[in-house]
Amino acid sequence: MSIQTLTIVGVGLIGGSIGLAAKKRGVAKRVLGVGRRQASLQQALARGAIDEVFVDFPEAVKRADVVVFCTPVDMIAEQILAAAPQCKAGALLTDAGSTKAALVRSLDGRLPADVSFVGSHPLAGSEKRGPEHADANLFDGKLTVITPTADTNADALDRTSAFWKALGSEVRIMDPEEHDRVLALTSHVPHLVAAALVSLLTSELLPLTATGFRDTTRVAAGDPALWTGILLQNRQPVLAGLQLLGESLDRFRGALTRSDRVALNRLLAESKLLRDALEKNSSRRA
Amino acid sequence: MSIQTLTIVGVGLIGGSIGLAAKKRGVAKRVLGVGRRQASLQQALARGAIDEVFVDFPEAVKRADVVVFCTPVDMIAEQILAAAPQCKAGALLTDAGSTKAALVRSLDGRLPADVSFVGSHPLAGSEKRGPEHADANLFDGKLTVITPTADTNADALDRTSAFWKALGSEVRIMDPEEHDRVLALTSHVPHLVAAALVSLLTSELLPLTATGFRDTTRVAAGDPALWTGILLQNRQPVLAGLQLLGESLDRFRGALTRSDRVALNRLLAESKLLRDALEKNSSRRA
Repeated sequence: MSIQTLTIVGVGLIGGSIGLAAKKRGVAKRVLGVGRRQASLQQALARGAIDEVFVDFPEAVKRADVVVFCTPVDMIAEQILAAAPQCKAGALLTDAGSTKAALVRSLDGRLPADVSFVGSHPLAGSEKRGPEHADANLFDGKLTVITPTADTNADALDRTSAFWKALGSEVRIMDPEEHDRVLALTSHVPHLVAAALVSLLTSELLPLTATGFRDTTRVAAGDPALWTGILLQNRQPVLAGLQLLGESLDRFRGALTRSDRVALNRLLAESKLLRDALEKNSSRRA
Repeated sequence: MSIQTLTIVGVGLIGGSIGLAAKKRGVAKRVLGVGRRQASLQQALARGAIDEVFVDFPEAVKRADVVVFCTPVDMIAEQILAAAPQCKAGALLTDAGSTKAALVRSLDGRLPADVSFVGSHPLAGSEKRGPEHADANLFDGKLTVITPTADTNADALDRTSAFWKALGSEVRIMDPEEHDRVLALTSHVPHLVAAALVSLLTSELLPLTATGFRDTTRVAAGDPALWTGILLQNRQPVLAGLQLLGESLDRFRGALTRSDRVALNRLLAESKLLRDALEKNSSRRA
């Protein structure tokens, strides 16, 4: 895949990494960066993630063959509706948002006929923010979920898939609602749980934590505003996930309350089996 | 501190690391290893964590000036009661168990007058097992909690403290019950939560996890039998911790149910503040 002009809206960790990967792999001849914060834009420019800096949104999307939105997920729909009429015919729009159903459903049938949007979610990231943490290899061997709808044309889907593959990612096509149900369990509920675990401590107890606690709660250092947006966009699946978590915790609690060694050991062993499979899965992909 | 003969009971990750650290830092002239599994003992010997292998328990403790028990926490009290009468006068016994109250209270007043036991818990470890993962620097800059009781004599407490410091650890004295209450929050409840989070997935969903899920659930790969023992030994504090976790999760759930952006953002921001403080705390100690 070779893109003449790629525009990245939001040059943080993800946007910056897309720029670096696109330049490193020759995916785009020219990369334009748009953002609100001059400091981030200048840093992305200095790191070579983008070639030109834009604060004027229409100007930056006008020239683009592909536009990728890496802004907070609750801002993307509005930005796409504003950008699409400025885009040239044949332009492809995609995004890197962590939730998909609300976004893609809100855009169905609302874009100009000669402009396509296909929702994407690269399962890559960090609790860190900003283009200073961008990484040209962030998508290497990772998975990007692409969530077409009945409205999506086959060519736009192919180009979106080719785009992420060209950045080093594997690709999987999913229904947007299914994506959101799964991500509630693999990402959004774990995030809430990490934040809740941290909330049990006071600063005096921090020295009494070990690496286990640090691993378990690492994601709780993520940006609160960003995560508030994600959780609200995926409210029902997250609430359903919290319900399932409560039921699972009740099984562990029940075994412990009854001092039921066999049941407790079995529950822990079942989780270990699955967690070990995840480790093997990760090693294979890494 | 210079120990003539150090005996390590249980030469897994922790026991093996104590041996390696003791040899590297010249803390012990001679290190004896006792265990049930010949493979572990031979591996510890091959790695230089121990100098001699014993399967005969009394023989190995008879010669020791210091004995450290690194066996599953629900086996330690029984082993100490068996070992103490074999020990020479002035011998110091300590341990590396993750829970303290049940252990130290069960030994109070039951050991020979010329043998001392002082409970210890090095806050260092891994979800991995076995002497092949032992590390001479495991205790470097980490914290070991020592939990004396009214029965503990000052000299034994000083020697226990000097032992862990000589292995590279910092030391903190705590009441055993207080240790257990804190560790329920910093380690045991997080372990149950990690296991519960894993239990929400099926193997088909594993590829749809990212690094966040892997970090959050890493500890769920820990040994089920070992953790069953820890959880049962610390049953009441863990149940109380689960109750607190449930109340915290309810606050997050409530904000999400009400779509209360401000409240959700505030809860996440409070946890981020504390988690960021932990990161600073860890960097300082590392």
